[in-house]
This record gives sequence, C-alpha cells and structure tokens, in this order.
Amino acid sequence: MRTLAIAGVGLIGGSLGLALRKRGFPGTILGISSPKTIETAIARGAIDRGVTLQEAAAEADVILLAQPISVILQTIDELIPIARPDCLITDAGSTKRLLCERGGALPCFLGGHPMAGKETAGIGAADADLFSGRPWIFCSDDVRLTLTPHGSDLLGWLRVCGAFPGYMDPGAHDQTVAWTSHLPQLLSTSLARSIGTQVLHRELVTVSGSGLRDMTRLAMSSWSVWRDILDTNTDFIDHALKVYIDTLTKMRENLQTQRTGEDFSIASEVAHRIRRGLQND
Amino acid sequence: MRTLAIAGVGLIGGSLGLALRKRGFPGTILGISSPKTIETAIARGAIDRGVTLQEAAAEADVILLAQPISVILQTIDELIPIARPDCLITDAGSTKRLLCERGGALPCFLGGHPMAGKETAGIGAADADLFSGRPWIFCSDDVRLTLTPHGSDLLGWLRVCGAFPGYMDPGAHDQTVAWTSHLPQLLSTSLARSIGTQVLHRELVTVSGSGLRDMTRLAMSSWSVWRDILDTNTDFIDHALKVYIDTLTKMRENLQTQRTGEDFSIASEVAHRIRRGLQND
Repeated sequence: MRTLAIAGVGLIGGSLGLALRKRGFPGTILGISSPKTIETAIARGAIDRGVTLQEAAAEADVILLAQPISVILQTIDELIPIARPDCLITDAGSTKRLLCERGGALPCFLGGHPMAGKETAGIGAADADLFSGRPWIFCSDDVRLTLTPHGSDLLGWLRVCGAFPGYMDPGAHDQTVAWTSHLPQLLSTSLARSIGTQVLHRELVTVSGSGLRDMTRLAMSSWSVWRDILDTNTDFIDHALKVYIDTLTKMRENLQTQRTGEDFSIASEVAHRIRRGLQND
Repeated sequence: MRTLAIAGVGLIGGSLGLALRKRGFPGTILGISSPKTIETAIARGAIDRGVTLQEAAAEADVILLAQPISVILQTIDELIPIARPDCLITDAGSTKRLLCERGGALPCFLGGHPMAGKETAGIGAADADLFSGRPWIFCSDDVRLTLTPHGSDLLGWLRVCGAFPGYMDPGAHDQTVAWTSHLPQLLSTSLARSIGTQVLHRELVTVSGSGLRDMTRLAMSSWSVWRDILDTNTDFIDHALKVYIDTLTKMRENLQTQRTGEDFSIASEVAHRIRRGLQND
C-alpha cells in the first residue's frame, strides 16, 4: 500500500490520516473532500493533497470510503466503471449488508466498520489516537480479500495505528449492532425527547445525577449520521425496538411485583457480562 | 448539634460520618445498625459507638434515617412514642411524599434526599467525599424547620462536607425524580434485560462501544433499593413510562421519516440543556 486515498476526510477519514502519519506511514495519502476540508486536512497533516475520485481511482492502491452511508453508496456507483482490479476499495459505514451487496459490483471491495467515534464530527475533531484499542470490523462475502497484499498491508497498518482488525459476516454484524448501538441510540433520543415534553422543576434537573447524563449522552448524536443507519438496518432495528417495548411494557404492568425484581437481577447480570465481554459464555 | 445519630450506617450514613469527621465535626456520632456494621463503622472512624434507637432518641440532637425507604417508615413508627420535641429527625430516602406524610406524625421531621450515590452499597463503600459538589434536597410542609438551631446546624455541616442543601416541595421532588432518575433506571434495566434475551455474536458484544456501557450502567443497581422506590412513587413513574413508551412507539412507526429527524434534533437540544442545567429556560 504505497498510496491510500480517503474519500470523506472527516472524523474517521481524517483520524486515519493523522494516525498513519503519527506512526510513520511512508506512502502518499490522498484526500477526496470539499476544498475547505482538503485545506484543513492538509494543514493538520492528515493528507498530502486533494484529488478527484477519478484521479484516486487511477493512482491509489487502497481507497477508503469514509463518507456518510448514502454518499458511500453513490461513490461505489461512480467507482464501478473506473475501479482498477488491483485497487482494494473499503469503507467505514456503520451498517454492512447493503454496502457489501452494492460493493460486490466492484472488482475488489471489502466492507469495514471502525468501532470508534466521538460526539463531534468533521476534520476538526480528527484524532491520531481515535482507533487505539478499538476494533475495526471487516465484512465481506470473500474474507480472503484481507489476505491479498493490499488487504494485509491495510490491516497491518491499522494494527500499527492501535486498532484491532476483526472479521464478521455482514448480517451478523448488522443484527448485533442493532442491539448494541442502534437500539441504545434510539432509547437515549426518546428519553431526552420525552423529558423535553415535560415541564420539570429547574432545580432538580440542575441537580440530576450522572445517571441522567449517561442516559442522554447518545441523544446528542447527529441525525445526519443516524438517518442513513436507520434507513439501511430498518428490519433489525424494528425487531429490537419491538422486543424492547414489550419488555418495558411488561415492566410497567408489573412495577410493584416480584417479576420486576427478577428483571432487575437478570439485567444486572447481563450488564456485568457486557462489561466482561462474555455475552454468550 | 452536639450529638448526631445515624440509623443505617451504610453508604450514605457511613459517608456522612466520615465526611463530618474529616471536616472536624467536634460532636458525638452514634450509629444504629447491625453489630457487624457498627464494628466496621467504628473501625473506619465513621461513628463513635453503636446505640439502640431508644438510646438515640434519648441522647441525639439530630437523627438521620439513612435506611431503605421501607425501613425508614418502620423507624418513624417506632420513633413516634419516644421522639423528643427538640430532636430534629431527618431522612435520606429517594422518594419524599410518603415519607414526609408519615414523618408528619413526629414532633420535628424534615425529609431529605442527598443526590449522591454509587453502584456499590454498604459501609465498605462509604466515602468522606461522597457529597462533595452534590445537592442535598430537603422537603417538608414546614420549610422553617431548616431555620431552627438544629436544622441550620445540620445544613451548615452538610455545606462544610461539600454538599449544596436546597429545598423542594415533596410532590414536585417525586414528580421530577420520576423523570430524571426512576425512568432512566427502568430504561437501562429493560435494555440489559432485552439484550439478555438475544443470542448475540460474542465478538461484537466484546467490541461494543461506550454507548452500550453508558446505557447499561444503571442496570447494575440493586433491586433491594429500587423495590421501595417503585413502591412509593408508582403513579409518577407509571405516567413517565406511558409517555416514554408512546414516544418510542411513534419513533418505531416513523423510523425512516423526517419526523424522527425532528425527534433527534429536539432530543439533542434537551440533552444539551440538561448539561447546562437550564431545563426551563
């Protein structure tokens, strides 16, 4: 991987550029973004220069699509007629089934999902250590793509940047993140939304504890990111919401009974297991 | 306040003892708890000695009931025939309407709610700085109790311990904590409970982000505390759950529409306002 092109030099794309430079990546890093973002990204040292998608398709060994999901889908379509068979194209979208399906039309596409983020978006928030200690999941119908020279180079550099590259089936990925990421997001948004309908006593909201702060942190996330996620994982999210609403409705009916006590005890066990990372043990 | 008695020398009661000692409280601190807890509390320096409730009622200027809500209710009943009119009795229960109503049978009762806590309970987790920077809400039909010599001594020492004593009407308190504390608790418990019903892919639960950890932290709370809270604030909690379930159900129906975009934007604004502590501005 002598030349990497990053399409969408925002939080994820910009952070990867900074991370590679910080760890001594000797190759060229190209950026595809708006003129203003390119200017900032060059000034921050995240990329060497701005190029068009056509130029990137001609020059790059690896192209990372780090745009919003709906833009990645458009970029894949634009790349289909111009992608070289020896250029590995990968992405950083948070859902994987549709992207892997559409990417299948490219000669060499490997879906990816860096499990890292921040509340703030854009090149200004980019951080050379964003991926440190965080998994970077790859999804493809052909996992051997991670073993090609460019594939194994890319994964090697991600490891150097502190990430833990791993592999999952696209469907298994989307089903699991519906529970571990998309459902929590919607619960937090609904909590802040519901509280917003109430006239609460200012003193006590002022003094509310860390529980409310934790539970409404995700609610600060941007709709521009979430619109595409809800659009491309609707079936799994809808199912998770159904199970959740049923659970909460039963808890409401049983507020004062021992059944809710059992729910608390199972939930506490699950929460501890999530922290140990041993869900299915 | 020369002599303070603490009934229930657990996390809250023990922390107050430690906090007072650390800040040079010169009076006597009595404890009412099981022999084992008394032994640990004396060893940690949280109290001077153990007494019975009868002895405390005879000796103390102020009695703090820092037990579970259901035990506080029993202790109030036991105190009614023996409480001296010049002894200020206060409590640390998380709901206030029922406690203030029952405490009204005592000659001098001031409901209280220190807005501080930890996931771990008991004297072992007691911490001299638990109340630092945290509000301590007082509720009473007669707010002038905070202006009596013992009342203003108590509030003064709480300020020295770092707390911010404030006042609210018991009903306003219970309605607000239903939204800011009790609802978030039930949402977190239901999330962990729902995830527990699913067979998820171990790799991805292992790699799930800080969002899921934040959203399931409260789920580790103990049922022994929450049973009493749900029992004594059922009406407000039921209403908050109804509004929340309606909001989430509508979001599920509108997953892919602009309406959910509006929900995200209002929710984000509310979450920011909660952080600024300006809910009603």
